[in-house]
Amino acid sequence: MPDISNRGRQMPASPIRKLAPLSDAAKARGIKVYHLNIGQPDLPTPASALNAIRDMDRATLEYSPSDGYRFYRENLVKYYASFDIDVTADEIIVTAGGSEAVLYAFMACLNPGDEIIVPEPAYANYMAFAISAGAVIRTVPSTMETGFALPAIGEFEKLINDRTKGILICNPNNPTGYVYTREEMEKIRDLVEKYDLYLFSDEVYREFIYNGTPYFSACHLKGIEEHVVLIDSVSKRYSECGIRIGCLITKNRALHDTVMKFCQARLSPPLIGQIAANASLDAGEQYMNETFLEYKNRRDFLIERLNAIPGVYSPKPEGAFYTLARLPVEDADAFCTWCLSDFSYDRQTVFMAPASGFYVTPGLGRDEVRIAYVLNNEEMDRALTVLEKALQAYPHTKK
Amino acid sequence: MPDISNRGRQMPASPIRKLAPLSDAAKARGIKVYHLNIGQPDLPTPASALNAIRDMDRATLEYSPSDGYRFYRENLVKYYASFDIDVTADEIIVTAGGSEAVLYAFMACLNPGDEIIVPEPAYANYMAFAISAGAVIRTVPSTMETGFALPAIGEFEKLINDRTKGILICNPNNPTGYVYTREEMEKIRDLVEKYDLYLFSDEVYREFIYNGTPYFSACHLKGIEEHVVLIDSVSKRYSECGIRIGCLITKNRALHDTVMKFCQARLSPPLIGQIAANASLDAGEQYMNETFLEYKNRRDFLIERLNAIPGVYSPKPEGAFYTLARLPVEDADAFCTWCLSDFSYDRQTVFMAPASGFYVTPGLGRDEVRIAYVLNNEEMDRALTVLEKALQAYPHTKK
Repeated sequence: MPDISNRGRQMPASPIRKLAPLSDAAKARGIKVYHLNIGQPDLPTPASALNAIRDMDRATLEYSPSDGYRFYRENLVKYYASFDIDVTADEIIVTAGGSEAVLYAFMACLNPGDEIIVPEPAYANYMAFAISAGAVIRTVPSTMETGFALPAIGEFEKLINDRTKGILICNPNNPTGYVYTREEMEKIRDLVEKYDLYLFSDEVYREFIYNGTPYFSACHLKGIEEHVVLIDSVSKRYSECGIRIGCLITKNRALHDTVMKFCQARLSPPLIGQIAANASLDAGEQYMNETFLEYKNRRDFLIERLNAIPGVYSPKPEGAFYTLARLPVEDADAFCTWCLSDFSYDRQTVFMAPASGFYVTPGLGRDEVRIAYVLNNEEMDRALTVLEKALQAYPHTKK
Repeated sequence: MPDISNRGRQMPASPIRKLAPLSDAAKARGIKVYHLNIGQPDLPTPASALNAIRDMDRATLEYSPSDGYRFYRENLVKYYASFDIDVTADEIIVTAGGSEAVLYAFMACLNPGDEIIVPEPAYANYMAFAISAGAVIRTVPSTMETGFALPAIGEFEKLINDRTKGILICNPNNPTGYVYTREEMEKIRDLVEKYDLYLFSDEVYREFIYNGTPYFSACHLKGIEEHVVLIDSVSKRYSECGIRIGCLITKNRALHDTVMKFCQARLSPPLIGQIAANASLDAGEQYMNETFLEYKNRRDFLIERLNAIPGVYSPKPEGAFYTLARLPVEDADAFCTWCLSDFSYDRQTVFMAPASGFYVTPGLGRDEVRIAYVLNNEEMDRALTVLEKALQAYPHTKK
């Protein structure tokens, strides 16, 4: 049989999805599985989006332009203006989710062997996309003890060498919930300018900042406008992960035109998704407020409840809708697997994402899990009862 | 400014879409542009698909599984069975169009520097996806004189070396319309087996074979079942290019699991597209027959009309809905550009894809264009009148 590629071998299995077959098997045994593993909101998609899909009056579902419909990009310009982000429709490329935006950003910017610096823990799929492009992720560790604050900027600088091409941040952060301060962002700015780097900034959770900190975008940084590559997605904002619509924004014309060549090769982003995403911009203030308050409330509930379980600790995330929790186990991978394959309480179990997959440095995060607070508090309460019972029943829990 | 990547520089601009800005500019000047450049059918999407979208009863548009919904994959199993292709739902991975299937097949199978052999002319984006994976496309030329029949198998064998990892075919062929015979397919089979290669087979036009030749799939070949990677898409079959649904099929478990890692990284294929594609399987015999007859009729009309234009020649394509035509010009790129930027007849012009982008060997296809017969005969008639007038007016037409 012909070999598979080296990059295919190196690709990590998603820590969020790799245990899905065990979850399916548990469900097949009649077990109710609480999905804490995946950022799949249970909140409703805006009615404006659902109506736009229903009312779509097209006889042929045709290709859209490779960079997405202009009407949608022009509406996005207004959306970004409301965050004081100044972009034009020609600087926006609509992509199949934020995922495609990250992949093409890496493909267009990074040569095999090029390095990017990423604070860890980080969204696991960045690693997968870096491997796809043959690039290398170097990490500066942030720790639970400091609430996952950005490491001292000197830690970034230590890693910079001839192969360093960029810095990647996710702000508000998945999986830690950390929100970068303006001061931290400006230190990153200085590095980007000093070493002539790209700054990839994934800001898909900008609506979900719970600590009153103002949202400070990479696009607000002065003097590095052409270095910034903004990654965005409507998935979480409007609870419409399935429509696969995101975008990549750059003021760097050469980069824009290069990304467009990748986009032309894949022809176009999803048509119906663009119609839904465009209509979602009319979701309204009430929808956005209710969504915000719901997640804030869930966060408060989850963190208090988690920290009340003996041996469990989670800092309070400031944004997004994830938290990293430390469990009283040696190996959270084994524990998460066991929960799905060997445990149930009252015919229920929990599906959590082992945190090890969010770290690059071997050994880090081994006793941590990522929990997405995408269940309502009633369901979350039951899920946490199940987690508590699981920790009591697990033979390897540290007492 | 940081550099863009080498692969980004090497990526070709799409010959199908690169002139789109000139077309937009012509439209802005009030010129009617006939799109012969792109395989964007004007036929209606099946009513079953449009109804399924309209009737979708979901409050939240959530992620689907990374390999697509099982109900859809199970229905695809029946669809393939109707072509005597024996696959299981676990051998099918739903992708964002055939494009994503090609990209992930290459990413999973090919190392940088690995070679694949492709008969040329070929669908231009294969080259783009190969560059994305760092792979090299080697071509065996087919020619207009033989109706683009597969070159002698010895021509393939001459190119095989230590870096050769696969053969890619598109059958029925885009852009030539050629349909591979069973005999040709079996010769390819022998090569694949002898040299332990992958066989990537793009068969998205299987419904559109006009010469009565039976469709013979790479999946029908015996003894190389685990070498075959089938690429498919619903885009053309059901006139729903915009929903971005295709699939990759492999019986090679290691390859399946590797492709799945790329699919997990991008989370999921479009949700609404899957609902539409699934419902399209119920389009019915009448819809499929009407579509078939419409394209056959358009082909007959187009080829006769094209060959009646002085100096123009096109062989009669046997399948798909494209033809390559030779024009009496030195440089079809320049002519296609001129048609959009400098010419109009009765406030109309034509947008054709210069064929050079479908060839890898420099210099081949310079006087050829690809024409998609995706306009009804009335529109096509007007478009061809415009083409004829353009050739009369063009200062560099060979007389």
